[in-house]
Amino acid sequence: MRIAVDVLGGDHAPRAILEGVAAALRDGGFRAEELLLVGPEEASRAVLREAGVDEVPPILHTDEFVGSDEKPVVALRQKPRASIALCVGAVRGGEADGLVSFGNTGATVAASTMGLGLLEGLRRPAIAVSMEGAAGRFVLLDAGANPTPKPLHLAQYAVMGAAHARDLLAHARPRVGLLNIGGEANKGGQALKEAYGMIEAAAEGYEFVGNVEGNEIFAGRADVFVCDGFVGNVVLKVVEGFAEYLVATAAEDGSEVSGALRRLLGAADFSEVGAAVLLGVRGVVLIGHGRSQANAVPPALRTVRAHLEAGVNRHIVRDLALGAEAGEGA
Amino acid sequence: MRIAVDVLGGDHAPRAILEGVAAALRDGGFRAEELLLVGPEEASRAVLREAGVDEVPPILHTDEFVGSDEKPVVALRQKPRASIALCVGAVRGGEADGLVSFGNTGATVAASTMGLGLLEGLRRPAIAVSMEGAAGRFVLLDAGANPTPKPLHLAQYAVMGAAHARDLLAHARPRVGLLNIGGEANKGGQALKEAYGMIEAAAEGYEFVGNVEGNEIFAGRADVFVCDGFVGNVVLKVVEGFAEYLVATAAEDGSEVSGALRRLLGAADFSEVGAAVLLGVRGVVLIGHGRSQANAVPPALRTVRAHLEAGVNRHIVRDLALGAEAGEGA
Repeated sequence: MRIAVDVLGGDHAPRAILEGVAAALRDGGFRAEELLLVGPEEASRAVLREAGVDEVPPILHTDEFVGSDEKPVVALRQKPRASIALCVGAVRGGEADGLVSFGNTGATVAASTMGLGLLEGLRRPAIAVSMEGAAGRFVLLDAGANPTPKPLHLAQYAVMGAAHARDLLAHARPRVGLLNIGGEANKGGQALKEAYGMIEAAAEGYEFVGNVEGNEIFAGRADVFVCDGFVGNVVLKVVEGFAEYLVATAAEDGSEVSGALRRLLGAADFSEVGAAVLLGVRGVVLIGHGRSQANAVPPALRTVRAHLEAGVNRHIVRDLALGAEAGEGA
Repeated sequence: MRIAVDVLGGDHAPRAILEGVAAALRDGGFRAEELLLVGPEEASRAVLREAGVDEVPPILHTDEFVGSDEKPVVALRQKPRASIALCVGAVRGGEADGLVSFGNTGATVAASTMGLGLLEGLRRPAIAVSMEGAAGRFVLLDAGANPTPKPLHLAQYAVMGAAHARDLLAHARPRVGLLNIGGEANKGGQALKEAYGMIEAAAEGYEFVGNVEGNEIFAGRADVFVCDGFVGNVVLKVVEGFAEYLVATAAEDGSEVSGALRRLLGAADFSEVGAAVLLGVRGVVLIGHGRSQANAVPPALRTVRAHLEAGVNRHIVRDLALGAEAGEGA
């Protein structure tokens, strides 16, 4: 098992990424040969040595990267040796099994989708984000890969999210909810109504709890929340911004920050627990928050390893096939 | 000035509503003749007396109401004397200038829209919710009146939200942002792109700051956040649910709840500060949270009075006309 690391992706790259890699190597969680660093060779080596790393992982050299404000597809075309493109190339070529990037999210999604292709039977990938709520950890998807999905896409998100929740969040039979603005089956636009029927019919390896409302996410009404990428992206960012606002005002008024808030934000670092996985591509792609510091790197690497070891992608392909049969039979 | 109060709307109605009315009367904020209670006459009188109210407001008697789980339009047809219908009738007939209801939101929106009609030049009403963020109080609309607005509807929400923010939240020239999943003008679906141009062209009495993302809401990037009713409803409820989750876990782990969180939730009562106003109808309609307790009633009444005294509706009509001219000239 080997994970490619985009050394040049993220607001604090390359230093924070490399320091995070050093921490992952030092604390014994990862061996050098389990990583493939993609970035400037000499500089990376120097930072790792400085951080006390004896055995430096293999490095695929490049100085190019896609900046956070660049248009993903244009930048990827202009920079064939952008670090994210080489990470994806390493996974495609079999030199790595998964990748971690804290860089431009759009570029990671575009490069991975085009470069790796989709799992058998799947129409669209989705960004899955896990957070903690009243019933333990849950997953919300799609957090932004596809703002306007068709009903079938939403139904396939349910299957992918359920596999993720079973394999990584220890929910043996995940409860899947469709995020909506009312509980009745006929709520929302046409796409949601159709998706409702498909998710209900396909229920393979999950329990469909129907429509759920926004206030039920952190209340733990389901383990998997399915929504379009526009709504999911807004929800994720609102929670992030609200949490940051609470921390800032707590600091001002001298009150303590609750454990839940601290856990959500990590060490002022949303991505530590809010790490996002691009589900549906052939490979495991972890999308970290651009603002991440070094402490976000080891958990990101552990998430990719857990995905690979659990075989989430294999389970998704199996469940999509079973769900499609169930849907046809319904 | 007189405000109709739906005594039978809300999970804790009628007692909590009446106790709240009593508090509003006792603390001197409101005189009896400024209110019109709509509900069971004798029972209401008894609760108010018991709560120490000497001069009981006029009461429009009814025992009928729309339950929180009823289908709004069906229920309104079957119950012509439902309390919310009589509240709306009182505003339409001039016996009241505004109304407050903590009942079925859909019924309040439907009854008000059909019964009162829309302000001149306006196409669709919107639910506006105010909350507090890093730059003071802001307003988000639409929080659920219309899940699939057209671009013109969104543009008109900007005008209404700006009038609300100027007159009630003391933002002399409110910054208006369009909630989106990226900052660039070409982000989002077709409706958002068109709305972007219209809000920019019409900018009358506000400053358009362009697209804003979810994390920028509580960060104070704008004073008015415009979005469709689906997204707005989900956002509002996610924030509510997340805040409640934080309070619950803070209680568990023994940590203090920050001042900001306390202010947001009121005394465990989201509606105290999250009170929603249905903007765009002829009259002032305040939609309180169904779970509200008595303490939510006085602030709700004060919000309606502030709206009426400021003449928000007059300003909306004026700005819609000016904005339409600017849009035509653009």
